[in-house]
Amino acid sequence: MQYTAVRAAIHIASIFALYLSVAMLFPAAVDLYYGNSDWEVFTITAFFSGGLAAGIALATQGSRPVLSSRFGFLLVNLLWFTACVVGTAPLLASSLDLDVPDAFFEAVSAVTSTGSTVLVGLDALPPGILLWRSLLQWVGGLGVIALGLFILPFLNVGGVSYFKIESTHIEDQPFDRFSTFVRTLMSIYVMLTFICAIAYAFAGMRLFDAVNHAMTTLATGGFSTHDLSMGFYNDQPAILWIATIFMFIGGLPFSMLILFFVKGRFDALRDPQIKVYAGYVLVFVLLGAAYLRLADGRSPGDALTHSAFNFVSIITTTGFATEDYGLWGSLGVAGAFLAMFLGGCSGSTAGGIKAYRFLILYELLRNGLRKLVYPNSIQIVRYGDRPVEDELQRAVVLYFAAFLVVWAMIILLLAGTGLDLITSVTSALTAITNVGPGLGTFIGPVDNFSTLTDPAKLIMAFAMLLGRLEILAVLVIFTPIFWKR
Amino acid sequence: MQYTAVRAAIHIASIFALYLSVAMLFPAAVDLYYGNSDWEVFTITAFFSGGLAAGIALATQGSRPVLSSRFGFLLVNLLWFTACVVGTAPLLASSLDLDVPDAFFEAVSAVTSTGSTVLVGLDALPPGILLWRSLLQWVGGLGVIALGLFILPFLNVGGVSYFKIESTHIEDQPFDRFSTFVRTLMSIYVMLTFICAIAYAFAGMRLFDAVNHAMTTLATGGFSTHDLSMGFYNDQPAILWIATIFMFIGGLPFSMLILFFVKGRFDALRDPQIKVYAGYVLVFVLLGAAYLRLADGRSPGDALTHSAFNFVSIITTTGFATEDYGLWGSLGVAGAFLAMFLGGCSGSTAGGIKAYRFLILYELLRNGLRKLVYPNSIQIVRYGDRPVEDELQRAVVLYFAAFLVVWAMIILLLAGTGLDLITSVTSALTAITNVGPGLGTFIGPVDNFSTLTDPAKLIMAFAMLLGRLEILAVLVIFTPIFWKR
Repeated sequence: MQYTAVRAAIHIASIFALYLSVAMLFPAAVDLYYGNSDWEVFTITAFFSGGLAAGIALATQGSRPVLSSRFGFLLVNLLWFTACVVGTAPLLASSLDLDVPDAFFEAVSAVTSTGSTVLVGLDALPPGILLWRSLLQWVGGLGVIALGLFILPFLNVGGVSYFKIESTHIEDQPFDRFSTFVRTLMSIYVMLTFICAIAYAFAGMRLFDAVNHAMTTLATGGFSTHDLSMGFYNDQPAILWIATIFMFIGGLPFSMLILFFVKGRFDALRDPQIKVYAGYVLVFVLLGAAYLRLADGRSPGDALTHSAFNFVSIITTTGFATEDYGLWGSLGVAGAFLAMFLGGCSGSTAGGIKAYRFLILYELLRNGLRKLVYPNSIQIVRYGDRPVEDELQRAVVLYFAAFLVVWAMIILLLAGTGLDLITSVTSALTAITNVGPGLGTFIGPVDNFSTLTDPAKLIMAFAMLLGRLEILAVLVIFTPIFWKR
Repeated sequence: MQYTAVRAAIHIASIFALYLSVAMLFPAAVDLYYGNSDWEVFTITAFFSGGLAAGIALATQGSRPVLSSRFGFLLVNLLWFTACVVGTAPLLASSLDLDVPDAFFEAVSAVTSTGSTVLVGLDALPPGILLWRSLLQWVGGLGVIALGLFILPFLNVGGVSYFKIESTHIEDQPFDRFSTFVRTLMSIYVMLTFICAIAYAFAGMRLFDAVNHAMTTLATGGFSTHDLSMGFYNDQPAILWIATIFMFIGGLPFSMLILFFVKGRFDALRDPQIKVYAGYVLVFVLLGAAYLRLADGRSPGDALTHSAFNFVSIITTTGFATEDYGLWGSLGVAGAFLAMFLGGCSGSTAGGIKAYRFLILYELLRNGLRKLVYPNSIQIVRYGDRPVEDELQRAVVLYFAAFLVVWAMIILLLAGTGLDLITSVTSALTAITNVGPGLGTFIGPVDNFSTLTDPAKLIMAFAMLLGRLEILAVLVIFTPIFWKR
C-alpha cells in the first residue's frame, strides 16, 4: 500500500465526514422545533466533527487516488468506519448517557442498516436522537446500494452489477454518463422514501414516525421509534402492509428500479436474481401463513399479514417485528432462523447472503451432481440465460467460505463473553447478515441487545461491518500482502 | 441406468447380505455362551436373512457389472442400505420389543458408525444385542475406509486417495496388486482392534466390554455397553487415554497406517491432511484443558484427560463421552458445537467435513483474498507441495454447498416434528457428521435419542446415511438423469 493512496483515501473519507457532520443539523433542527435541549448537542458536535473533518481534508489535499483494487478496498473500509465514528459522536454527547461501546454499537448498527439496538424506551427518546439513528440507516442504505452497484463488482468481490452483467449489450445502457446514473439513483431513493413516508402518514402514522420509519424501511434497516417496533401498529394492518411492500422494494436491485422508473421498462424484471428473491419470499410467506393458520389458529388475514411482514422483514434483513416470532413454535422458529441467511438482491439495501449467490450455488450444485453422473459431460453454470464467468463463480465460492469461517469465529468469540449457544449462534448470524434481532431468550425480536457485555457489543459491531461490506472487502485489509508497499 | 447394472448391483449387495447374515452367528454364540435366549433369535434371523440373500444372489446371477460412475453410486448406496436393513432384522426380532423406526434408527446409527442410540439400560441388555451393535459399527468402519480409499475418489466425490494423489509417483506404490492392498488393510484393521481390546482389558475393562469398545473405538462409532458411555470408567484414566489414542488412530488415513506398519515408512506422515487433523485436535484439546482448568477449577490432569477424551471423541466423530460437556459453560459448548463439523482424515473411519477439505477451503480462501488484492496475480491451490487439480477443488466446493443445503433441509424437517431450534440444529449436524450425541436439553452426551418421535428418528437415519456416504454419493441417486437409460 502506497502512502499517497492512504492519504487520498483519508482525504475522501474526511470530505464524507464533513457532509455527515452537516447532516447533524437536521436532528438539531428537529430537537429545536420540539423544544428538546439536545439541539445544542447536535449543533456543537456538528461544529467540532465538521471542523475536524475539514481540517483533515485540507491537510490531505492534493493527494491523487490510485485506481487500484487495494485503494478501492481501503476507501470502502475507511468510508464505513468514518460513518460509524461520526455517527457515534452525537450519541455519546447526547443526554442519553451512553458509554462508548453502547454508542458505537448503536451507530454501527445504524450505518450498516442492521437495526439491532441497545436503547430501551425508544418511545420517550428525544426526537433528534431518533432522527439521527434513522438518518444514519438511510445514508447507510444508499451507501450500500452504491457499493453493490458500482464498487464491489469492480473489486471482484461479486455482485451482479448492472454495469458488469449488462455491459456486454451496449443497447441496454440507457445512461451515457455515470454521474447521470448516480443522480438518478439518488432521486429515486429519495422519491421512494418520500412515497413511503406519505403512505405511512396516510395510513395513520404520526408524521415524525412516518418519516423515520420510511427511512429505515427503504434502507431495510429496521430501527423503530417504538420499543414494540412495528408491533406498535398491530391494529393498523394497512401500515404493516405498507412496510411489507417497501421492505420488499428495498430488497430489489436499484438498477432495475431505475430502469423501471426512468424508462418505464419492465424487461429488467427478467433479472434472474429477482425471480429467486421473489420466489423464496413467496415460499416463506405462504408456508408461514399456512403454519400460523393451522398450528396457531389465527384468522387467515392475521396469519398472512404477520407472516408476510415478519418473513419479509427477516429475509430483507430489515429486522422490524410485529410480534415475537421466537414464540412461533419449533417450525416457525427454524423458518425464521433459516430466513436470516437469505437476504435480498445485489445492488439493494438488503444484507444477507443474497439471491444471486444462492442461484449460483444451486447451479454449481446441480451441475456438480450431473458431472458426477456423467463425468465427461460439460456443464455450464448459468445466470439466467448467460453463462457465469469463472471470476464470479470464484467470488461466490469465496464468499461462502469466508462466511462460514467468519461465522464460526464470531460464535466462538461471543460464546467467550458468556453467551449461551443459541444466543451466540444467532447473534453472530444476525450481525453478519445485518438482520437485527436474533433468536433465543435475550436477543429475540421483542428484546434488545442492552443486556450484552461490552466485549460482546464490540464483537457484534465488528461482525456487522464485516457483513455489510460483504465480508471479503474487510478481510482483505487484514492480509499482510494488502499492506505491502 | 441400465437394467443389467441394477441387477448386477443387487447381486453384489445380496452376497454382502449373506456374509452379514453369517456374522449374526457371532452374537448367537455369545448369547448361547451367556445363556441368553436371544441366541435363537440371532440363529433364526441369520437363517432367514441368509436364505433370502442367497435366493436373491442366485436369481441375479450371471449379470455383469457395468463399470460406470452410475453403477458405482448405485452399488455404494445399495450396500449401505442393505447393511442397515440386515442390521435391523435381529434388533426387531429380539427380546427388546423395538418398533421398526427404533430398530432401524439403531441399525443405521451402527452401520454408519454414528453412535446415537435409542436404547436405554445398555448395561442390562443381552450380550448378543450389544455385540451385534458393535459388530455393525466395526464393519461399517471398515466399509467407510474402503469407500474413502478406493471408491469415492474414483467417483470424483473427493477424498485424497492414496491411489489418486500418490499414483503419479510410481516408486511410491509398494503394492503391485489391489487385492494385496485390501488384504493388508483388513489385517491391520483387525490387528489394531485386537491391540485396542487387549489394552482395554489390561487397563481393567471386562473382556466382553473390551472387545465391544475396541470395535466401536477404532470404527469411531461410539456405541458403548454402558448408559454412562465411557463415563463408566471415569475412575480409570488409563482406559480413557487408551480410548483417546485409538479414536485418534481411527481418524488417521489407513493408507498411511498401512505404509507405516508394512513398510515401516514414516514419510506418509507428511500427508498434509494429517498435520491439519493433528493440528486442530491439539488446539481443541489444549484450549479445552486450559478452559476446564481455569473456568471449572479442575486439576490439570483431570482437565487434560477429559478435554482430550471428549474433544477427540467429537472431532473423530466417535461420540463417546465421559461426562456432559453440554455443561462446560458457554465457551466449552460452543467449542463442542464447532468441533462437531471437523472430522478426521480421508480414508479413515471418521465422518465430518474432514481435514483435507478444510485445508483446501483455507487455500481457496487465502488465494481468493490474494487475488482480490492483486487481481492479475496467478494463485495456485496447493495440497502440501502439490497443486490441487481442478476436479478435487470442484468436489470440495460441491461438498460444502451440498452440506449447507442438506443441513438446512434436515433442520427444517426435524423442526417440523416439534424439536426446538438447538435440538434440530445439533441433531441434524450430529447425524450428517456421524458424531452421535447432540447438544441441548434432550440429546446431549448423557442423554439419548429415545425421546424423539418416529418421523424424527427416520429423518435422522436418512441424514446419517447421507453423511456417511459424503452426501453427494446419495444426492446423485435423487437426480432424474441418474435414472435415465
